Amino acid sequence: MNIAILGYGNLGQGTELAAYNSRDLHLAGIFTRRDPARIKPLTKTARIFPEKDLLSRKEEIDVLVLCRGSATDLPEISPMLARHFNIVDSFDTHAAMETHFSQVDAAAGETGHLALIGAGWDPGLFSTVRLWAESILPKSTADTFWGPGVSQGHSDAIRRIPGVKDARQYTVPIEEAVASAERSGHSVLPPQSKHRRECFVAAEKGADLARIEKEIKTMPHYFANYRTSVHFVSEDTLRQKHAAIPHGGCVIAAGQTGLQNQHRQLMEFRLKLDSNPEFTGAVLAACARAVHTLHGRGQVGCITMADVAPADFSPLSPADFRRRLL
Amino acid sequence: MNIAILGYGNLGQGTELAAYNSRDLHLAGIFTRRDPARIKPLTKTARIFPEKDLLSRKEEIDVLVLCRGSATDLPEISPMLARHFNIVDSFDTHAAMETHFSQVDAAAGETGHLALIGAGWDPGLFSTVRLWAESILPKSTADTFWGPGVSQGHSDAIRRIPGVKDARQYTVPIEEAVASAERSGHSVLPPQSKHRRECFVAAEKGADLARIEKEIKTMPHYFANYRTSVHFVSEDTLRQKHAAIPHGGCVIAAGQTGLQNQHRQLMEFRLKLDSNPEFTGAVLAACARAVHTLHGRGQVGCITMADVAPADFSPLSPADFRRRLL
Repeated sequence: MNIAILGYGNLGQGTELAAYNSRDLHLAGIFTRRDPARIKPLTKTARIFPEKDLLSRKEEIDVLVLCRGSATDLPEISPMLARHFNIVDSFDTHAAMETHFSQVDAAAGETGHLALIGAGWDPGLFSTVRLWAESILPKSTADTFWGPGVSQGHSDAIRRIPGVKDARQYTVPIEEAVASAERSGHSVLPPQSKHRRECFVAAEKGADLARIEKEIKTMPHYFANYRTSVHFVSEDTLRQKHAAIPHGGCVIAAGQTGLQNQHRQLMEFRLKLDSNPEFTGAVLAACARAVHTLHGRGQVGCITMADVAPADFSPLSPADFRRRLL
Repeated sequence: MNIAILGYGNLGQGTELAAYNSRDLHLAGIFTRRDPARIKPLTKTARIFPEKDLLSRKEEIDVLVLCRGSATDLPEISPMLARHFNIVDSFDTHAAMETHFSQVDAAAGETGHLALIGAGWDPGLFSTVRLWAESILPKSTADTFWGPGVSQGHSDAIRRIPGVKDARQYTVPIEEAVASAERSGHSVLPPQSKHRRECFVAAEKGADLARIEKEIKTMPHYFANYRTSVHFVSEDTLRQKHAAIPHGGCVIAAGQTGLQNQHRQLMEFRLKLDSNPEFTGAVLAACARAVHTLHGRGQVGCITMADVAPADFSPLSPADFRRRLL
């Protein structure tokens, strides 16, 4: 099957590597807004095209993977491109999910395409584990923790403060809150009581560090009410020690069974990722495989990963799966 | 939807409790080989019938959950009953899985029924996580650990030794092997290097304890080559401290991504269950829900949990799922 990638940032590169490592996926091309002549792809066999050539290469593409941002790009391009392609996107703005779903569903349904939205690990794998918990243990509530890992949005927010040259923000689960979730089923805590924020900041020469630290710690929504620590470091240190994009997190669901609810049943799913974009890209590639299979069976419209049987993410035949992994 | 339970041991009781706790599942009846008059069900609304009445009550049952053993019962009754009912079974004899699958598939397919075999947590949820790992991270191998938990088969084996009145055997993962799996992707170790066995034994008065301990530790397949410890305790202690049936385990998959495989990606799924039969019964109930839904869409033949989209295990509508858990 032939997949194509739209957008060649970190996520696009992660998806490129995933296709390169999957024997059954052929990368038909990477499409970018930038000048293809000035971009060197990571893998030898990848070809880069200008975004304007996308529709003219429609016949060569079974599934198009959209590696663009949720904030402004995907709400516009996912419905538009679902009229021409089977697509996978990683839309993750929770409040706008239902609107996005309806628009993509209408576009894909009308033109006989299949679109999978919200692909990745959260939403994505974590959503499935939350669904398992609620389906199997009706008396449980799944609790989700994010990190330790880099939050791009929070890093950007720090960079906009005057006097800051560069910054990297790590979201870190608070250990006592994780332990409480494991004990009690769910911690019933707001996000700011479950996570702390660690900031590494390179300031301009002569900048007022106390003011920068205060501006970070009092920034509404982003840092205010969070346990926040600020470390000033050199630009070199940022480049050398904080260039990676690790992330991860866990879903913890503790339910009860038994006539007197006397038996505790704990379910836990955890990811520790050295590279968030490469793992997410690998999930998108598996989703592209599933979309191709399900579209081949006649399915059209919009779905999420919870609508896909696990076997359809896999290149294995059902008999091979039963023999090797069941 | 109406489910019925065949077999009223620990697993049958666990499934009864799961149906009782699920608003959308109605328990049409429990069918047993024993005299129904002499059995008091756990839940007030459950009705107990003799097994011979099963076929005559066919019309009242949407899905029949088979709570019988894999060793001798299921290979015989699953294909037989799949001719008359949609069924769920927890068949877990790995070596015989493909034969069982074919026989059930033929029986269910010919008569227009749907059968889900191998339901539970391993095979079951753990199989799906192993499949996720292989689908998303082609360079990973998932490693599975069982326990800490009670192994019924090993407990029975100890009880057959002369001089033993009662026994309980716990399978416990060896911590260094778990740590090694988390570090390296897979520990490449045989089961006896990944698990140790802890035995609590009540001996008859005057029995030769040294001989019993030696017979346990040298028992081929069961204990020989395993790190085994034997503790002699009173029958009272066994009853008071070892009556529960806890279990659990984990699947650990560590893969690599990146052009030089430089990024480690770790996926871990863990269960800690105070009651193995009650959790497994809850999984079987969720599978019964899925079988009813998929059969309603026209699916027939034999499937496993990997062939079911997570959304179909849930009583939630797709829109409710997207709003609450995605």
